[in-house]
Amino acid sequence: MNMLNIQLTSPLTVTTPKGFKATGVHVGLRRKRKDLALLLCEAGADAAAVYTTNQVQAAPITVTKEAISKSGGKVHAVLVNSGNANACTGQLGLEHAYASQQAIADQFQLAQEHVVIASTGIIGQPLAIDTLLQGIEQLQPDEGEEQADDFALAILTTDTGTKTAGRQIWLDGELVSVCGVAKGSGMIHPNMATMLGFLTTDASIPSPLLQDILKSAVNRTFNCITVDGDSSTNDMVMILASGAAQTQPLQPETDEIEQFQQAVEEVCQDLAKQIARDGEGATKLIEVNVHGTANEWTARKIAKQIVGSSLVKTAIFGEDANWGRIIAAVGSIDEPIDVGQIDIRIGSQWVLRHSMPILFDESLASRELAQDVVEIEVNLNQGPASGHAFGCDLTYDYIKINASYRT
Amino acid sequence: MNMLNIQLTSPLTVTTPKGFKATGVHVGLRRKRKDLALLLCEAGADAAAVYTTNQVQAAPITVTKEAISKSGGKVHAVLVNSGNANACTGQLGLEHAYASQQAIADQFQLAQEHVVIASTGIIGQPLAIDTLLQGIEQLQPDEGEEQADDFALAILTTDTGTKTAGRQIWLDGELVSVCGVAKGSGMIHPNMATMLGFLTTDASIPSPLLQDILKSAVNRTFNCITVDGDSSTNDMVMILASGAAQTQPLQPETDEIEQFQQAVEEVCQDLAKQIARDGEGATKLIEVNVHGTANEWTARKIAKQIVGSSLVKTAIFGEDANWGRIIAAVGSIDEPIDVGQIDIRIGSQWVLRHSMPILFDESLASRELAQDVVEIEVNLNQGPASGHAFGCDLTYDYIKINASYRT
Repeated sequence: MNMLNIQLTSPLTVTTPKGFKATGVHVGLRRKRKDLALLLCEAGADAAAVYTTNQVQAAPITVTKEAISKSGGKVHAVLVNSGNANACTGQLGLEHAYASQQAIADQFQLAQEHVVIASTGIIGQPLAIDTLLQGIEQLQPDEGEEQADDFALAILTTDTGTKTAGRQIWLDGELVSVCGVAKGSGMIHPNMATMLGFLTTDASIPSPLLQDILKSAVNRTFNCITVDGDSSTNDMVMILASGAAQTQPLQPETDEIEQFQQAVEEVCQDLAKQIARDGEGATKLIEVNVHGTANEWTARKIAKQIVGSSLVKTAIFGEDANWGRIIAAVGSIDEPIDVGQIDIRIGSQWVLRHSMPILFDESLASRELAQDVVEIEVNLNQGPASGHAFGCDLTYDYIKINASYRT
Repeated sequence: MNMLNIQLTSPLTVTTPKGFKATGVHVGLRRKRKDLALLLCEAGADAAAVYTTNQVQAAPITVTKEAISKSGGKVHAVLVNSGNANACTGQLGLEHAYASQQAIADQFQLAQEHVVIASTGIIGQPLAIDTLLQGIEQLQPDEGEEQADDFALAILTTDTGTKTAGRQIWLDGELVSVCGVAKGSGMIHPNMATMLGFLTTDASIPSPLLQDILKSAVNRTFNCITVDGDSSTNDMVMILASGAAQTQPLQPETDEIEQFQQAVEEVCQDLAKQIARDGEGATKLIEVNVHGTANEWTARKIAKQIVGSSLVKTAIFGEDANWGRIIAAVGSIDEPIDVGQIDIRIGSQWVLRHSMPILFDESLASRELAQDVVEIEVNLNQGPASGHAFGCDLTYDYIKINASYRT
């Protein structure tokens, strides 16, 4: 085993891991921008996925869950469109979802259950299925970096830029890659639906173990983002493992799986931060670290409560070191905590010790709050656990973007 | 018993019920506006109160809870200041709270435990206790309508106007009044702390029964308001019953108590709507009615989820009949519901039937969304229960007010 972690300077993309091809094109679901993306693993990949917890789920979510269940976690192709969420579209929506799945299966000679689909866009509108089916015929996935960039572009909606990340590790003397791409601007934005993430790796790992790793990574990363607290009908994060690096299948409770898990978590974390920073109208990333709780779950819940508070988000937009709103957010969680021993740090300065305000330099605080990244630390001093969350400030532009999105 | 409900055209104030005096003055905790208020019931009132559920609680909350517990629910005086919340102020804050309680007790010759206190304003700053104690000497409560208006004014913070309501009912041939006054603009606004409500009545009712009635009324009214979802360190709603109307003490499970309960709930509802409509930066009141759930609790939870969604609030500010955001908010609640049978009405038009979009007049919808009050109805069609919630839109002015409040 080799513990060396390499981070190449060349961009790592979803086609960096061996065995994957990608593409992204404009087919006419949207006016001008690329709107259809395909990720292909011809030899088939072991897959794992995490979906939205919203009870209103789009047709592609239903079809993808069914495919993965039927195939026992084998996926050869992922089709994504960014024009229309195909949510709240009833039986017709389901038929459209199956038709697009079948079209990919036909074109690339795959079993239908080896094709999964995802979508994001307007909800409650029937999919322009003929446009989509004609578009599918144009898809010519390849291994190039450019094709991976096209994929990253074609899944975007209100995002201001593509979001990609990658890590490489040595396993059995082979260089193994874990790469990912995501979209998600308003988090969550039910009408231009939402957060999608796709990870690829050439490690060899059975689906059930991959599922455990993805779920744990998503809980610590994507699920720690709060942009506006709403949750969507179309959220999906999926990882595909091609096994093409020709390493031994990863086993539970080994050093190798720990390295792999860390790489997956880092890629997810990197993408999650890019999403938070690109929240609708956001001018800065807010990172909240909570320490000193009885367990990680509580720490994460408090961190999310803080980063999700409209008052905290607005104060940070206003570059105001308003710790009163932070402690009020801490106190509002629905499990008992000791509120008498709380320390709060904003930027480089502690502003509260044992729940009592201490003098700090307000002008330094304002200058630090004007930076791209704002760090808040809270210590409850009553346990060994820590947790974090990410978010963004709440700004005039959030109102502007969302007040007139649909019409 | 007389079922006639009278609603007088003359204003009903907290001094309308017999036995109460009030006043509100400027003592210097704030720069110019009235900042100290007193409500007095010389003969003593039976009291009930509901407090913030935030675990970080201001000193006045601690002192008031202790007084009510010691006195067995007897209250003679309520002192309120609107300059300083006296929250996160430690032992000194508690001493200041006791000192102000004692000063009122001395001045009006009351037992200390018959005096309760409430406050709202900046948190984490020591109270200017000398200013407050000198101010207390100025207080000359009286029964007049003008004094009641002064009280209503002196408890305000970022509110744009006073909030009062009243109902009168006949009990035992006597006219009995239930009146109230409230403040609360940002709901909830931890740094200019929050929602206060004071009701007075000249009915005769023992404290434990009054507590049940208040709690139930608050759950259906004040607790159904969401402005920004945050919850404060200083929230309090209190009702005082003087018994001065000389009616028989109210008994459980009688027609009389039902009438009284209805009057209390209507006063709370009226005040709650005034608070929601006066949410920081709000341009309109949003009323959400949810029907067809298994129980009232679920209906209310869904209604609050809708009215608390930043995306829904922003769409309504933008006069956009965006039902996608409404159904996504419904689907995001944390208990299982059938999401296939949902009807949604925005203004006068049904926009979704059985979870499928139906054609509606978009321009009519926009015109209706431009009104002062926007009504949303959701029917889940899977049970007999209903619930409601109130809120306001999310606007540029919310950001403006809250981005620069403290500094």
